[in-house]
Amino acid sequence: MAARNVSVLITGANRGLGLEMVKQMVQCQHPMKKVFACCRDPDGPRAEALQALAKKHPDIIKVIQMDTADLSSIKQSAQQVGSLVGTRGLNLLINNAGMLIKSIMQETSAEDMQTTFNTNVTGPMNIMKEFLPHLRAAAKASAMPGMSCSKAAIINISSLLGSMAAVKETYGFFPAISYRVSKASLNMLTLCAAEELKNDGILCASLHPGWVRTDMGGEEGEIDAPESVQGMMKVMASLTEQQNGAFLDFKGESISW
Amino acid sequence: MAARNVSVLITGANRGLGLEMVKQMVQCQHPMKKVFACCRDPDGPRAEALQALAKKHPDIIKVIQMDTADLSSIKQSAQQVGSLVGTRGLNLLINNAGMLIKSIMQETSAEDMQTTFNTNVTGPMNIMKEFLPHLRAAAKASAMPGMSCSKAAIINISSLLGSMAAVKETYGFFPAISYRVSKASLNMLTLCAAEELKNDGILCASLHPGWVRTDMGGEEGEIDAPESVQGMMKVMASLTEQQNGAFLDFKGESISW
Repeated sequence: MAARNVSVLITGANRGLGLEMVKQMVQCQHPMKKVFACCRDPDGPRAEALQALAKKHPDIIKVIQMDTADLSSIKQSAQQVGSLVGTRGLNLLINNAGMLIKSIMQETSAEDMQTTFNTNVTGPMNIMKEFLPHLRAAAKASAMPGMSCSKAAIINISSLLGSMAAVKETYGFFPAISYRVSKASLNMLTLCAAEELKNDGILCASLHPGWVRTDMGGEEGEIDAPESVQGMMKVMASLTEQQNGAFLDFKGESISW
Repeated sequence: MAARNVSVLITGANRGLGLEMVKQMVQCQHPMKKVFACCRDPDGPRAEALQALAKKHPDIIKVIQMDTADLSSIKQSAQQVGSLVGTRGLNLLINNAGMLIKSIMQETSAEDMQTTFNTNVTGPMNIMKEFLPHLRAAAKASAMPGMSCSKAAIINISSLLGSMAAVKETYGFFPAISYRVSKASLNMLTLCAAEELKNDGILCASLHPGWVRTDMGGEEGEIDAPESVQGMMKVMASLTEQQNGAFLDFKGESISW
């Protein structure tokens, strides 16, 4: 991650953890070569902070319109990014966009389940599939041995709430059944993708950002976005083929499925 | 399960494991009091074996029309079953209906993901919710202490393929990413339901039937349906509050998430 030649794409980059990632990736000692900051409505009021940041770093940040729930929008942005990165490919894809409904099962509708699954699982899968040629290109173009986030990697932002092992302790005060189901799904997707893509030299891992005080995490969160992202950046920089398929928190600790 | 006063509902009861469950539940030494055998099209050619069995055991088997992908159909059948069981309630709900697509991620469409999720996860959730009043009634009507499948329980038929721990060993020869994701989801749903419903005295558990030679499992399966169902019946009969939320195979062995 310290290498200057790394290109990264982040979904949900206009706020919360996504925006903080973009910030840290351009303001650190060794900024990324290119940050593709994706959001649904780049010209809307919710993307103002991202646009202001992009104006300050026009050589690095490229704001990309992408609706992660819309396959044709994903295909379009994959084409756009492809034309910008060429044969160097895309080194790092971070599926960060997601949604959260907090209800217990008895108050969860079929629509809640489907919408959350589509946003948190099918969207990331479509993005992984459509950007796969660019990730493969990056793995091929790299002279580095093994696997790393500087070479070719997919990081899916998951949650401790997707851990089966954590249900008994946490369900009482934070049920969110559709979210838990979607994050367990995302963990399974990541793990399968890690197997499927290992021969392409593409690393896949799930990260738990901690319970962060963002719009999604709420005010009761335990840490702020900068701390979470600092941790995740450090973890991402440390990943090797040993962690292919892993589920880690922002401190690098392994989480039980 | 040996108690004669147990009523059970099974989805996908017209073939494979579902049909075998109905068979064993009426042909055993201590048959169930009532078996609600649900399938989408009770009058179609694929329900002939079930209808023949129901004719032989008209006092026990009641064939119920239920399309598990259609909420209004689920509501209707819940009403129908409710009027039949009354205040005694429904003791055991077995979510057995499911579907399988075998493709790797790169060949899995968004539609594959959504359809499999709806059938294998949202359907069971809707059924759990709609039959909850009848399960609660059974728990209330029972004089038995603790939890059991003779009192009030939800058994979700899952799969070893829903185990994260099994991915590395098994993905290469049996990818089925949409199915794996759906079964990991179902495990999470079951685990959360176990927490949510424990104060109602309703036991929830996930069972792996083994790799069975059915239409779904294919000819390469390792066991036949009778062996799988014999095992699962024995496991169900043995469950107590100790196993609430558990993920067990047809031999009663615990499976890692």
